[in-house]
Amino acid sequence: MERFERTKRLMDLTKVKPGKKICLKDLETGWAQNEEAKMLGKSKLKERANKLLEKNRVDLAEAQELLYADDRYAILIILQGMDAAGKDGTIKHVMSGVNPQGCRVTSFKQPSATELDHDFMWRQVIALPEKGMIGIFNRSYYEEVLVVKVHQNLLDNQKLPSRNYGEEFWAARYQDISNYECYLVRNGTLILKFFLHISKEEQKKRFLERLNNSDKHWKFSASDLKERDYWDEYTKAYEDMLTNTSTKWAPWHIIPADYKWVARSLVGDIITSSIYSLKLKYPEVDEQKRKAIEAAKKQLESE
Amino acid sequence: MERFERTKRLMDLTKVKPGKKICLKDLETGWAQNEEAKMLGKSKLKERANKLLEKNRVDLAEAQELLYADDRYAILIILQGMDAAGKDGTIKHVMSGVNPQGCRVTSFKQPSATELDHDFMWRQVIALPEKGMIGIFNRSYYEEVLVVKVHQNLLDNQKLPSRNYGEEFWAARYQDISNYECYLVRNGTLILKFFLHISKEEQKKRFLERLNNSDKHWKFSASDLKERDYWDEYTKAYEDMLTNTSTKWAPWHIIPADYKWVARSLVGDIITSSIYSLKLKYPEVDEQKRKAIEAAKKQLESE
Repeated sequence: MERFERTKRLMDLTKVKPGKKICLKDLETGWAQNEEAKMLGKSKLKERANKLLEKNRVDLAEAQELLYADDRYAILIILQGMDAAGKDGTIKHVMSGVNPQGCRVTSFKQPSATELDHDFMWRQVIALPEKGMIGIFNRSYYEEVLVVKVHQNLLDNQKLPSRNYGEEFWAARYQDISNYECYLVRNGTLILKFFLHISKEEQKKRFLERLNNSDKHWKFSASDLKERDYWDEYTKAYEDMLTNTSTKWAPWHIIPADYKWVARSLVGDIITSSIYSLKLKYPEVDEQKRKAIEAAKKQLESE
Repeated sequence: MERFERTKRLMDLTKVKPGKKICLKDLETGWAQNEEAKMLGKSKLKERANKLLEKNRVDLAEAQELLYADDRYAILIILQGMDAAGKDGTIKHVMSGVNPQGCRVTSFKQPSATELDHDFMWRQVIALPEKGMIGIFNRSYYEEVLVVKVHQNLLDNQKLPSRNYGEEFWAARYQDISNYECYLVRNGTLILKFFLHISKEEQKKRFLERLNNSDKHWKFSASDLKERDYWDEYTKAYEDMLTNTSTKWAPWHIIPADYKWVARSLVGDIITSSIYSLKLKYPEVDEQKRKAIEAAKKQLESE
């Protein structure tokens, strides 16, 4: 499809090349990602982005039906980002047109005691989408190399055989995740991973918005602000994650997210075009089935 | 809300009074359910129904957000009906505006060996919605008194202690289900149960539509037609189910479903008004939290 030509160019900008060392402060969090965008200007670009989001919402609903009929692929969408990066809003605005029968969102919060008694990917594995379905992970097993890396005391709850949490330990986690994703892709799961990249200033702005809006006070938790103190440590953990787990089979996309309309339209566009690129089709009906259909028609008509 | 006054009157028509003996052939499958509808006429009524569906879709999306914030209730929606009664289409058209993060659909097909090794409600119980969420069961544990009652040889796979499947056996199942639903309701689940009621003629029409549309051939299964031979047995099983499991805490609604627009607008309206009638509200912020919010604001602003 012609209209995905631009998407391909955009994806070249957002996609993390396997093995490339990522330094987040060098990457844009705003809207001016490329020459074309700069030339258009912000307000024109926003208008175009919102139209595209709307169009993709319709296309995505259609693509999901075909995905279900085709029944060879599952789609796994992983969203990661700092607090207030816009994960929930992105899910809501990109996916709200999709038939909920074909789409399942799972948010991963603090693990339970039972979950901690299993391997670190277990609780996500049992939530994986089946063929024909779109599964969205709002946070994921990647938290195991993010919050857990920043607060390594959390590892004590995991009762691991060795308590040596050095470089090799994290390298092994990156590898375990990449290997597992490779297995999933080989068996028919398309994996799309998005890191919503916001600036520290934008997070401050969004926190203050929440604090100044009494309708959102119930959402506030003192721990949100505490994690902000670890901004640099999280940034380092994200950089290591992006550098070490962006693979040919499951690359990361770094999405500039200071402007919600930028993030939403980009994510929507990448998801939609990626599903279309699978060249899904309605299953073919073989000779035996065709005969059964003819027989069924006759039987019904003669009732 | 005033606009739900009409809904209340409609619900009086669709709701099965506890203990009332149901005879399905006495109940309308078409559109003329009441005097008002008859007076309006079909095309005017259809126009109104579609507008209402659209309005409810918007309201439902809002209600779901409030449900999540309020965090005291879960909503369980159960859809049952003969093949081609419109269960999938109803889910799609009523729920497609809802944020998929707050809504989870589970379709129950043939049970696995592991599932058969558990009690008959186990696989549905583990799929129940959590607080703040809307869970939709496309078919449910009610199949245990429907397809399983029509084809009692299926019970052999359940390896029950006794193989006496007489009246008492089914009475016990109805009671077990009602008791379990009572427990769920007591603990904060709102249960809405819909039986989509179509005529045998309408099923024939829909089957033929599928058979004549090559895009839908992949969906066709010879077993659909085989089950149609058991129409009367299924009707009897549905009547027994409706008579015995419509309770004060979890009543059944019988939805005339020969016209898709009738079924969809009714189901959408009942769901939306039922959620609104819970009088959900944003959680109140106590003094301690208010202080924490003030402190957080100061901290951020002084950065």
